[in-house]
Amino acid sequence: MQPITRLNQIPERLKQDAPRRIAVAAAEDANTLGAVVRAVNDGFAEAILIGDRRAIEQTASAAGIHINPAWIVDAGDHACAVACAVQMVRTGKADVLMKGLVNTDLFLKAVLNTETGLLPKGRVMSYVCAVEVPDYPKLMFITDTAVLPFPDLNQKEAMLRYALSMARRFGIAEPKVALISASEKVSPNFPNSIDYALLSKMAERGQFGKCLVDGPLDIFLACDPASAAIKGVPTPIAGQADVLLFPSLEACNAFYKGLMLFAGGELAGMICGPDKPVVVMSRSESENSKYYCIALSCLMADE
Amino acid sequence: MQPITRLNQIPERLKQDAPRRIAVAAAEDANTLGAVVRAVNDGFAEAILIGDRRAIEQTASAAGIHINPAWIVDAGDHACAVACAVQMVRTGKADVLMKGLVNTDLFLKAVLNTETGLLPKGRVMSYVCAVEVPDYPKLMFITDTAVLPFPDLNQKEAMLRYALSMARRFGIAEPKVALISASEKVSPNFPNSIDYALLSKMAERGQFGKCLVDGPLDIFLACDPASAAIKGVPTPIAGQADVLLFPSLEACNAFYKGLMLFAGGELAGMICGPDKPVVVMSRSESENSKYYCIALSCLMADE
Repeated sequence: MQPITRLNQIPERLKQDAPRRIAVAAAEDANTLGAVVRAVNDGFAEAILIGDRRAIEQTASAAGIHINPAWIVDAGDHACAVACAVQMVRTGKADVLMKGLVNTDLFLKAVLNTETGLLPKGRVMSYVCAVEVPDYPKLMFITDTAVLPFPDLNQKEAMLRYALSMARRFGIAEPKVALISASEKVSPNFPNSIDYALLSKMAERGQFGKCLVDGPLDIFLACDPASAAIKGVPTPIAGQADVLLFPSLEACNAFYKGLMLFAGGELAGMICGPDKPVVVMSRSESENSKYYCIALSCLMADE
Repeated sequence: MQPITRLNQIPERLKQDAPRRIAVAAAEDANTLGAVVRAVNDGFAEAILIGDRRAIEQTASAAGIHINPAWIVDAGDHACAVACAVQMVRTGKADVLMKGLVNTDLFLKAVLNTETGLLPKGRVMSYVCAVEVPDYPKLMFITDTAVLPFPDLNQKEAMLRYALSMARRFGIAEPKVALISASEKVSPNFPNSIDYALLSKMAERGQFGKCLVDGPLDIFLACDPASAAIKGVPTPIAGQADVLLFPSLEACNAFYKGLMLFAGGELAGMICGPDKPVVVMSRSESENSKYYCIALSCLMADE
């Protein structure tokens, strides 16, 4: 299988298989409906729109979005809609959970509930994004943009596994992982660089399967073959990273938003860790990025 | 005075005044010589090349760079060259200190020496960059890309003052400062956001002079007027930040390197805190960026 190197190749790849069922919690939101209906029309998704039937129908109609009334599951208030959506995914009636017009904290509380939620006890929840910019020849899988503020070693290991799993699902047989810092030096002034040295060694021992993991590396050594050559730092990544693991949410968030704003970037992202993909989109994301988030979660639903 | 909005406007601005004297410590480096000689030829710098005379002359000749033998101060080994360069700046015989082909730690140790160095006791040293990208209508002054790993409140305050001072020197009467986080929420999960709330209030009280300071803000709210409007977050920055203060070196470093690689970025940066500008250039910076670093330090030498 050729690796997927551009986000618009995800829907193509999905068309080979049966559509995935997306349970949208509190679907009365035009943005969300627009992206979901586009995925349905493109043949890789089935919509389960959970929420207030009348509000959903009015929202769709006002936005000129055509929805099938049979897609709607009437569910009263937001708390009910979220509980119902989570339950459908838990019981295999849906393949992907997606947040609609509901408070993110309320939504995640339902996902995280140890009795009725989707995250097995002890499993780390994290966020992985596939980022595309015109000036990089492939996708960058970056983590964590949104969930773990200051990941410890255990959390970094989970982030690494989720990003690897995504890269492999995109057809990359031996993903190259750059553990991002400000320089390539391991130093006690940068505690993350110490975690990175440990993760690199774990990878060398085969603890993450087939992959190349190296860090600390800066963005140039991670993504620019010329810099890697000039600096003479011996690294198997050599400016060709598939995965970029960041030391903090603040660092990862600023990095990807800089690329979205100034480098023509697009992205697809999802929450990893729960038994099935969970999609939480931000209103400030582009229409395309929202659609790609859904496509990504459908691709990952088989994992 | 019209604000400077592009890096190539700095040399123009400098031509109005007498050239600044740049003391280069260990000048036997072709990259450094090339950038300095370009500044001399453009009329805003005078070169003081400190190091091994023969090595400097051979390096220049091999690289096809024309230097005047009278610019050279013969100074034996690197430690001597650094001591001599620092001493010239201390005693007013030079206006700017610049690192040549010498280990950065050795160089900074001389700058930081409390008896013979350039940093007054108790003053914070930090790094400020002016970054230019085609898709932003003005310069972004970002800090700290290189010196302070995890700045505390006191260090953040110093970073803010240095960046403000630079923005004002560029002709911005009321700089807009965005204190960068992953979102606009003040939260104990993000201790930096608490420092930001304090800095915002200090600014409101006039403690930083004429400026607008707000945070936490994410990159979209800081630099994208459209996002600021969509999200409805009340902030005087509203997508038009001049200064971006980052929560950590790792975050700032990854951000600017992403823009250099993928958004056509250029930069000019210098160390702030010492009595006179200190220039430390990285080999991985572009030829233009090196030249702009010198121009920036000349502009800031009058402060």
